[in-house]
Amino acid sequence: MGRLSSIFSLRHLLVLSLAANASLILRVVYESDKSSLNPVNQRSDALMAGDDATQKTHFSAPSPPPSVAGAAEDRVINLDHGDPTMYETFWQKMGDKSTIVIPGWQSMSYFSDVGNLCWFLEPEFGKEIVRLHKIVGNAVTEDRYIVVGTGSTQLFQAVLYAVSPHDAAEPMSVVSAAPYYSSYPAITDCLKSGLYTWAGDAREFNKDGPFIELVTSPNNPDGHTRDSVVNRTGGILVHDLAYYWPQYTAISAPADHGIMLFTVSKSTGHAGMRIGWALVKDREVAKKMVKYIELSSIGVSKDSQLRAARVLKVLSDSCESPSNETQPFFNSVYHIMAERWRLLREAVKHSGLFSLPEFSPAYCRFLNQSFENQPAFAWLKCEEPIEDCEEFLRSKKILTRSGRQFGVGPQYVRISLLDRDENFSLFVKRLSNIHL
Amino acid sequence: MGRLSSIFSLRHLLVLSLAANASLILRVVYESDKSSLNPVNQRSDALMAGDDATQKTHFSAPSPPPSVAGAAEDRVINLDHGDPTMYETFWQKMGDKSTIVIPGWQSMSYFSDVGNLCWFLEPEFGKEIVRLHKIVGNAVTEDRYIVVGTGSTQLFQAVLYAVSPHDAAEPMSVVSAAPYYSSYPAITDCLKSGLYTWAGDAREFNKDGPFIELVTSPNNPDGHTRDSVVNRTGGILVHDLAYYWPQYTAISAPADHGIMLFTVSKSTGHAGMRIGWALVKDREVAKKMVKYIELSSIGVSKDSQLRAARVLKVLSDSCESPSNETQPFFNSVYHIMAERWRLLREAVKHSGLFSLPEFSPAYCRFLNQSFENQPAFAWLKCEEPIEDCEEFLRSKKILTRSGRQFGVGPQYVRISLLDRDENFSLFVKRLSNIHL
Repeated sequence: MGRLSSIFSLRHLLVLSLAANASLILRVVYESDKSSLNPVNQRSDALMAGDDATQKTHFSAPSPPPSVAGAAEDRVINLDHGDPTMYETFWQKMGDKSTIVIPGWQSMSYFSDVGNLCWFLEPEFGKEIVRLHKIVGNAVTEDRYIVVGTGSTQLFQAVLYAVSPHDAAEPMSVVSAAPYYSSYPAITDCLKSGLYTWAGDAREFNKDGPFIELVTSPNNPDGHTRDSVVNRTGGILVHDLAYYWPQYTAISAPADHGIMLFTVSKSTGHAGMRIGWALVKDREVAKKMVKYIELSSIGVSKDSQLRAARVLKVLSDSCESPSNETQPFFNSVYHIMAERWRLLREAVKHSGLFSLPEFSPAYCRFLNQSFENQPAFAWLKCEEPIEDCEEFLRSKKILTRSGRQFGVGPQYVRISLLDRDENFSLFVKRLSNIHL
Repeated sequence: MGRLSSIFSLRHLLVLSLAANASLILRVVYESDKSSLNPVNQRSDALMAGDDATQKTHFSAPSPPPSVAGAAEDRVINLDHGDPTMYETFWQKMGDKSTIVIPGWQSMSYFSDVGNLCWFLEPEFGKEIVRLHKIVGNAVTEDRYIVVGTGSTQLFQAVLYAVSPHDAAEPMSVVSAAPYYSSYPAITDCLKSGLYTWAGDAREFNKDGPFIELVTSPNNPDGHTRDSVVNRTGGILVHDLAYYWPQYTAISAPADHGIMLFTVSKSTGHAGMRIGWALVKDREVAKKMVKYIELSSIGVSKDSQLRAARVLKVLSDSCESPSNETQPFFNSVYHIMAERWRLLREAVKHSGLFSLPEFSPAYCRFLNQSFENQPAFAWLKCEEPIEDCEEFLRSKKILTRSGRQFGVGPQYVRISLLDRDENFSLFVKRLSNIHL
């Protein structure tokens, strides 16, 4: 204890703090400089990045901070990917409660919890996952194994590895009802695996034999609450519940499925951590998922798990004991999403060229009120005579993802609603004023 | 600046420090409790974890801290995997210089550097990678793309994805000279990819057509300095240089290959970060590697990259401006490895039942002296009449990895030499006293 205290003397901490401040300032200046260079050219580079199917989803440069980006009317607004920078404001308000300090000699071993089936899960993070699900009531955690992953993307692959038979004559079919998450086909097929293969829209699936059905609820891209659609036995269901949180949808009951995937990216907004978790009923499936993550990355960043544990703790604390300064997390972001959807629907009405999905209200047991889904993405349809909605919006300098990538037609696009306030405001203003 | 400073007031930092101390103490107590439960049973569970080939390398519980593990002579010493906990001592000595502080609202975006081909590489980390290679002189960084990965394990897969033709009639062969790193076959074949397939010992490879040869130098498991062995054109070489650092081998010249892989796990000892990097000559290869990491995990933990940047900075600072209190990093760990090899060779001599590889001295341009390789692993051979070295040592409660997993016979085992002092000392003492 004596040594630990001396390592962190007040003076040392002040030096650390100053160094952190300096580096943050340098970073802001540095990144602003770079971003302001030429966002349009950066986007062009990204668009030219490849010519195969998977490369269509190549990451393009996000919109630069408005303050350095020149005149608003000329600026490209990139809402192609769901970068959740909207959440920064909440965490800034929380101040240093959610700050973590990691000494250089900590977390050096590969191992986090040698007694656990998932030996690379930080115990503190596991504890906070269970606590948060209990507070929100969105998933059953009893008799579940927790498997941590490098985002839910890695967990999705771990599930495919875990549930496909390794001695089958042909690869197992993987399906999801269109419109489905644009990355599912690319991830499933990128290595031409002999274990599994992408088989497209679950509604049109009619092959015999076992299959995997991905059920994303609320759905990415269209925001609808979903159930399995393949109406026969032999299917293994994987529930991607990245958006089953009260800022996006009413929490009607704790989800109680065999394999459920979650991620911090869309719950707390910490996409840069690359942390997701799976709640898995079957021990053998959990064990094989752990094996996959061992093989593909020998575990998951401990630093990000420790940080995620801290962030979930602060979030749960904010719900259990709200303070005068800050609203509980979910109430706060619920209101932001509600306001964004109100503004978006107004803009769409004003323009007259587009339409949006309609949702029915449902009762949320966490927020104790009824409301309609207010998804992280707008699934926008361009009305006739516009044929290619992505192209049309691009001509207005709004970058979106085409419906084609989600297994449907070019009259649809997916638009992220999780960008920073300034970009969102500029987007609805511009959308509102688009007329033929 | 005003706001940043107020977030980190002295008092807040003290509270943070105390919280960190408390959590560390709780952690030590908690993990000690768990580890002391029954390490032998934990090992049994791990051994029973599966029956397929890949599961032979299932992670088993590391040795518990000696202080809580009961009588030394009864204790299982687990040296199966290369957990680099030996390095903790150096970083403890460095105190708070290598500590990082990450506020809750930092690094939330997916993006780190939108102008960079590797858009998820933290610029600070990229800068420190180049600086360290320049100081050590172990790799050319000019005209190279840096690709960061979730450990070099993910980068290895990214390379396979990047260099295999995606339209070939059959998968590309992947080879490495035996004894080769035990995880290569399992990782290569785990998804039964149609792009590439494990084809075994590079020395016996005689198939026509293109192939990928993995050159690990110094080699894991046997510590020898290596070159490519397949003597014909059409091969793509991948240099795994995880151990090309002056604590393990003489740095004779900067490595100058097309694809070179490095990892913090074996250079600084921070395995829990899961951070590796590749230096790649060809732009198209680098671009495809980035694509793979996008698909498989949408980038790499920013928190760990920021921490890795800090650790590399402190390491480079220690080399450029050594202080009175601490030796430069590489000198310090070079001496530890030299002493461990001296003790190991003494123990082997005293026992009379084993043998070790012999190495020729070479001149190190970084340490300005000649020395023999002093690898991270001992590649131990049991002499006759012992047939199965792994089984034999297990009967003495020393857990190692069998030569079979490295593509050779059961008379060999690989033993980690990077465990904490107490475990290493107990190991050499026990080895020394083994007689038939």
